[in-house]
Amino acid sequence: MMPLAEAQARLLANVPPPPATERCPLNAALNMVLAETVTSTVTVPPSDNSAVDGYAVRYADLGRVLPVSQRIPAGAVPAPLVPGSAARIFTGAAVPAEADTVLMQEECEALDGQVRLPAASSVKTSPVKKGANIRRAGQDIRAGDEVVSAGTRLSPRHLGLLASVGVAEVSVYRPLRVALLSTGDELAEPGTAAAPGQIYNSNRYLLHALLAEAGMIPVDLGRVADDYAATHGALASAGQRCDLVLTTGGVSVGEEDHMRAAVAALGSLDLWRVAIKPGKPFAFGHLGDTPFMGLPGNPSAVLVTFMILVLPWLRRAQGLAGDPMPPCVGLPAGFSTDKPGKREEYLRVQVVGEAGQQRLQPHPNQSSGMLSSACWAEGLAVVPAGRVVREGDVLGFIRF
Amino acid sequence: MMPLAEAQARLLANVPPPPATERCPLNAALNMVLAETVTSTVTVPPSDNSAVDGYAVRYADLGRVLPVSQRIPAGAVPAPLVPGSAARIFTGAAVPAEADTVLMQEECEALDGQVRLPAASSVKTSPVKKGANIRRAGQDIRAGDEVVSAGTRLSPRHLGLLASVGVAEVSVYRPLRVALLSTGDELAEPGTAAAPGQIYNSNRYLLHALLAEAGMIPVDLGRVADDYAATHGALASAGQRCDLVLTTGGVSVGEEDHMRAAVAALGSLDLWRVAIKPGKPFAFGHLGDTPFMGLPGNPSAVLVTFMILVLPWLRRAQGLAGDPMPPCVGLPAGFSTDKPGKREEYLRVQVVGEAGQQRLQPHPNQSSGMLSSACWAEGLAVVPAGRVVREGDVLGFIRF
Repeated sequence: MMPLAEAQARLLANVPPPPATERCPLNAALNMVLAETVTSTVTVPPSDNSAVDGYAVRYADLGRVLPVSQRIPAGAVPAPLVPGSAARIFTGAAVPAEADTVLMQEECEALDGQVRLPAASSVKTSPVKKGANIRRAGQDIRAGDEVVSAGTRLSPRHLGLLASVGVAEVSVYRPLRVALLSTGDELAEPGTAAAPGQIYNSNRYLLHALLAEAGMIPVDLGRVADDYAATHGALASAGQRCDLVLTTGGVSVGEEDHMRAAVAALGSLDLWRVAIKPGKPFAFGHLGDTPFMGLPGNPSAVLVTFMILVLPWLRRAQGLAGDPMPPCVGLPAGFSTDKPGKREEYLRVQVVGEAGQQRLQPHPNQSSGMLSSACWAEGLAVVPAGRVVREGDVLGFIRF
Repeated sequence: MMPLAEAQARLLANVPPPPATERCPLNAALNMVLAETVTSTVTVPPSDNSAVDGYAVRYADLGRVLPVSQRIPAGAVPAPLVPGSAARIFTGAAVPAEADTVLMQEECEALDGQVRLPAASSVKTSPVKKGANIRRAGQDIRAGDEVVSAGTRLSPRHLGLLASVGVAEVSVYRPLRVALLSTGDELAEPGTAAAPGQIYNSNRYLLHALLAEAGMIPVDLGRVADDYAATHGALASAGQRCDLVLTTGGVSVGEEDHMRAAVAALGSLDLWRVAIKPGKPFAFGHLGDTPFMGLPGNPSAVLVTFMILVLPWLRRAQGLAGDPMPPCVGLPAGFSTDKPGKREEYLRVQVVGEAGQQRLQPHPNQSSGMLSSACWAEGLAVVPAGRVVREGDVLGFIRF
């Protein structure tokens, strides 16, 4: 068997250059991968501004009654503060020149056209300091700062940040197109009656949604008959239209396997026995220049091999920088095992208990054919090959 | 100040009935909330089937050389096993009546039209048992079993499971429409030049993407001028078209606030000071029958109040069953604090270190105006009000 780390390294060593770029408005760029490093042309905030509704004053004037010489709503451009006066100011508004402190309105007493300022020491919350309640220009970003770097997957936070520096559209890598090909005469389509001996095709829908969730474009090519010519034709066409061709269940050492022969005829194919459970049989090859991956047929094996082998590859191929593996936190096991496994095992688990006493609890049925346990679960617990688990041992946990 | 738990409870006590339902094909149902409980009409797997490529035999015949009497690919309907023979069988194919065990092909020796079976004790991996390598009918699901319950948000796993029982479309709640209204003359739109005193509108893009990520429909109504009539008109129109009206930055105790008066005129409005940091000022009201929420103006406060107050409400209003709060795991703090806070604080943190030695590390600048630290962070660490944190204390961690 091939150690899992070796399989991952071999796949990641075979990532093609990223796809073409396109310009994309912010509201359409969620989950896209940024193809350029964006630097700011502006300073955020652009000027010193008030963190509260209140009065902008000079610190030396605290304790006095002052006339209110101007009113500064957010967005207005204030005049310099008239000496010996206060400026009424609102949250986010620019602090006028000559003012060095902002007092919260709750601490002041508004009189008719005047305001009574508290003494520095009498302020309720804490003695007020010179510079209080002023957010400094450039506190968040300075002009020329790198804001978001190329290779970042754009989250809502990134889109908000890009907007905050005035960027309305960005250059992103066009989403990868991934062909899905189902094989096997035993597969019936949902919504139709299954003939005796047939089972419903679930992998097609599972993978379609996993790809959509990852921000890529699933290209569903349907089911191919168990026939060499049909398989060869479907693969050749898929390879021309897509960035990756993905199949399930068709690549094994079984005699019924036209997929293997057709891929080899169109390019090259390696069959791996990867030390991963569920999983193990995994095929990697090329149809001409287009990469091909063949996953096992059991749905939970499809889920795990997609998350651990295919998706990291896809993330890199999409142009994503940094670690392509799913995020993993350490949590204590709420179970134990008798003997070490030969393969790295991905158990379908729930996280039970309150924060601080949380434990990973596996579903009692970890059969690779079961999707119901994957729906019950919140994520996968990782048990390395050769490891006996004792209750309380910290294991990696990957949330779905 | 209102304790955070009270604010959450008040909001969740004000959730309207779920929206109308619609039929949706599986490939379009990702992230939708299921409006019906689906029970299976089929058994999965439908019959006893082989877990491997190999030979279906009677256990009593182990150690013998047998003729191969039939060949059973996946999807075929086998004849009963001829006594004293073996059946060639492939992964997923139905096990013939009269056979009670499947042997892996690697353990057998194929001869011309015959096969030499290993003795029970000589099998390499482990002594073979009666019933080996057979997946039993109904192991995953039995006809009549509840497969996915109403109120479930449909993940790729759920869609795969529904397909596996032959379901092609489901009844879901139509996605909520959420109106986004920006206020403030100080806001400039990205892609345009900002006048002196203006800042770019980032909350609009942040919230648009957060809503899209949650599977809801953002209805961006643009920016309203700081003017009572314009605000009143925009709110009245939004309330008629959407399930929730969301604004940022417009609701405070400041004098510049037309939003407050307009919402009150159209229905009702409560202004809360919630014990959450960043956050605190939060408005909840109604425009006629349509709920209204007013968030703070600072982008990181918008992010946190959206995740902790708005999104749980939206999830419930969307028909989601179960806990509406974001999933939270306990991880040790990699930092300490001097004094207890009055508000529950949500720190922007990274998870640093290997699994098992992971620590929560906060960004040095937690200013509520900063979105760059939210982009740097992987999630939020929760510090309860009144709590002093010592390094190593377990805190709740919410991944973005």
